[in-house]
Amino acid sequence: MSELDRVLAQIDRDMDGALERLFAVLRIKSISTDPAFAGDCAANAEWHAEDLRAIGFDAAARSTPGHPIVVAHDRNASGPSALFYGHYDVQPVDPLDLWDRDPFDPVVETQADGTKVIRGRGSADDKGQLMAFVEACRAWKAVTGKLPIPLTILLEGEEESGGVNLPGFLDANQDELKADIGLICDTNMWDATTPAIVTMLRGLCGEEVIIHGADRDLHSGFYGMAAANPNRILARILAALYDDQGRVTLPGFYDGVPELPGQLREQWGTLGFTAEKFLGVVGLSVPAGEKGRDALEMVWSRPSCEINGMGGGYQGEGFKTVIPAQASAKISFRLVFDQDPHRIREAFRAHVRARLPADCRAEFIEHGSGRAIRFPDTDPAFAKARKALSDEWGKPAVFIGSGGSIPVTHMLKTSLGMDVVLAGFGLEDDRIHSPNEKYNLVSFQKGIRSWARILGALSS
Amino acid sequence: MSELDRVLAQIDRDMDGALERLFAVLRIKSISTDPAFAGDCAANAEWHAEDLRAIGFDAAARSTPGHPIVVAHDRNASGPSALFYGHYDVQPVDPLDLWDRDPFDPVVETQADGTKVIRGRGSADDKGQLMAFVEACRAWKAVTGKLPIPLTILLEGEEESGGVNLPGFLDANQDELKADIGLICDTNMWDATTPAIVTMLRGLCGEEVIIHGADRDLHSGFYGMAAANPNRILARILAALYDDQGRVTLPGFYDGVPELPGQLREQWGTLGFTAEKFLGVVGLSVPAGEKGRDALEMVWSRPSCEINGMGGGYQGEGFKTVIPAQASAKISFRLVFDQDPHRIREAFRAHVRARLPADCRAEFIEHGSGRAIRFPDTDPAFAKARKALSDEWGKPAVFIGSGGSIPVTHMLKTSLGMDVVLAGFGLEDDRIHSPNEKYNLVSFQKGIRSWARILGALSS
Repeated sequence: MSELDRVLAQIDRDMDGALERLFAVLRIKSISTDPAFAGDCAANAEWHAEDLRAIGFDAAARSTPGHPIVVAHDRNASGPSALFYGHYDVQPVDPLDLWDRDPFDPVVETQADGTKVIRGRGSADDKGQLMAFVEACRAWKAVTGKLPIPLTILLEGEEESGGVNLPGFLDANQDELKADIGLICDTNMWDATTPAIVTMLRGLCGEEVIIHGADRDLHSGFYGMAAANPNRILARILAALYDDQGRVTLPGFYDGVPELPGQLREQWGTLGFTAEKFLGVVGLSVPAGEKGRDALEMVWSRPSCEINGMGGGYQGEGFKTVIPAQASAKISFRLVFDQDPHRIREAFRAHVRARLPADCRAEFIEHGSGRAIRFPDTDPAFAKARKALSDEWGKPAVFIGSGGSIPVTHMLKTSLGMDVVLAGFGLEDDRIHSPNEKYNLVSFQKGIRSWARILGALSS
Repeated sequence: MSELDRVLAQIDRDMDGALERLFAVLRIKSISTDPAFAGDCAANAEWHAEDLRAIGFDAAARSTPGHPIVVAHDRNASGPSALFYGHYDVQPVDPLDLWDRDPFDPVVETQADGTKVIRGRGSADDKGQLMAFVEACRAWKAVTGKLPIPLTILLEGEEESGGVNLPGFLDANQDELKADIGLICDTNMWDATTPAIVTMLRGLCGEEVIIHGADRDLHSGFYGMAAANPNRILARILAALYDDQGRVTLPGFYDGVPELPGQLREQWGTLGFTAEKFLGVVGLSVPAGEKGRDALEMVWSRPSCEINGMGGGYQGEGFKTVIPAQASAKISFRLVFDQDPHRIREAFRAHVRARLPADCRAEFIEHGSGRAIRFPDTDPAFAKARKALSDEWGKPAVFIGSGGSIPVTHMLKTSLGMDVVLAGFGLEDDRIHSPNEKYNLVSFQKGIRSWARILGALSS
């Protein structure tokens, strides 16, 4: 029995223990965007530091101006080194009444189709994914007494809230953190049976705008139509972001967005993706974006502009005839290829200002930004990881794009000069960021096994 | 000393008592739109019934499917009879953090300019106004042992929440409630020194729309641009309600809206109204409505369409990259002349449906409706009331319009066949429906005196 086979057997034997540890983390309410949960975030970081020390890492939760960052080293092996990144923070849970159970009381449930899933906030994004990696390390240590490669683990607590403190932390600790390859677990498989490595990621530009009108809420009977209504101004501003063809109207928005290379378009064409299936899962059927482009191209290689939140005036039960003093919206742009987040932010702000009545005012709040990224999938580390994944899942792993943004990927590239293998075991129907988030039990178990294989492969 | 002079002297003597009673009502949290305050509404109705019995009325709080309606009779006098209407319910108080003090802990404050004001939710809308009428009755009874005319007082508890139960109540009790003239207190003076009788009132059509997209909240990275975003659909629907000239685009919206009669336009032109002053009070300067029309015409005799509330997606602190499953808006139309609320509601719903993607759905909630109204100001009761007001304030009272809607006015006309004298002592800067609502102490005291005079005048 090879070393790897013994590690894989150990993983299968210890599944109950692995689940117990995952549940312990899932019970911690590490909602990073809400200051009320700062203590929970700190406790979560401390939990990981202690767990990693128990495995044999030199680990600590390090304080930042925001939530702590966990750093753990085990560099006893020789050979090419790796830096693994995950995040322990989770999205808010509202609307809470749409959850079938307490988001922080995890459980393994069997779905109607027989699939076993781990239910709870963070199960897929990203606690289940990062614990899959940690469990792989634990198994290697248990069986062989050491890791196959020199390894550093970095766990962030602000991925869901803008991640403002990570760039400075990376810059300040370059020598300590730099490795030959980056490993990130925050991505999906192609489908439930096909593993994937993401080599193209969209960037992100997050922006909030608050339109201020009168210096108080007004009665719409006395002031209706005569006084500026921030709701109306905001609706007009937001509607004008799109033209009739579903294209974003900001000047220069599509600068640096080439048509998809023919070869890649061809490869993606073989994936059997259909808009009907993609949208059907969530109860939709009509692709909503740019007319004439297919949905896969849209979410992997075209930029987006989405209104993630908007609100103004009375939203409670019943009716209130008010003209609100302000209205606001949170907007995110997903970026591709060479789009510049800063130019797009400026174009958006100019778009708003151009549509403001003279007696109204706009306030802007920046919510993070990162460029799109693309890795050279011909690098040997990518080939090794691909083979390891293909061995575990019995099916060739594919190189794909991802509509989501993982800003840290870009940071690892720019701050530490590292390429990154993005391999995760999430699925499209995991409901991340939504009520009833889940992570398939198979994703967790075969995820652990996959990472164990990748760690072994990278040492060769 | 005439009977009236003795009544007025009694009013001035009893101001401390009158304030004490008003404060007792202002302390009751009678927010009718929020079911959590149903008990407070019932308590408020009971308070009035008991107070009116103490004055000598035959009074009771009568139950309805919603909040109780208080009815009180004192028909010992002879001569033409009157039905007085007021409402004891108040608007919600959010946003609470914009109040300088507890909305339900009333106080008399002296403003920077020396004006004394009664501060608290409902002080102007409508508790201060209705108690001014009740105190006038109390003074007549105290001095003469009876009221000058046969009188019924009706106090509603659902004026701020759609008033769905009042029409049925009026219809069911026509014989008991019918009188020669209606008296309503829920209006403003022209300015702080000029009393006014409102003879033109805008109607109202309140509507809520909820746009449903995917069957769950989605991650905007994975689904961005490809999946329908209810926020985006709603923004487009709302923006399309207005054209570049500030006119409402619903087909047929302006049917039954004539140009203002020349004589009325001329009379209004003498009032010294300016948009600068009107909007300046609330920190604005640019009239926002139909281009080419002045602001007074806009709020008194032109229809309006206002987005009173809208919301969808994540509105908390920080950022959440979600595509929400739904977004909603509350919209009110203020109606003039012969506009039909039902046709306008249907036109709005058609406007929404025409802009819905095939895989999305709209849900509609009706929030009350009432036509615009105009009284024949040549009627003798109007002349008597006008003279009484002019005597009290030492300045001729004016006949004006009002942008606000008082649906009960239309109900009294249609259900009971009554004309209504609308005389109130509110001011434009009372912040009704807003934080820090107030009612001038002068409005309260001279309001009581004015009603005492009107009651006397109507008996002659």
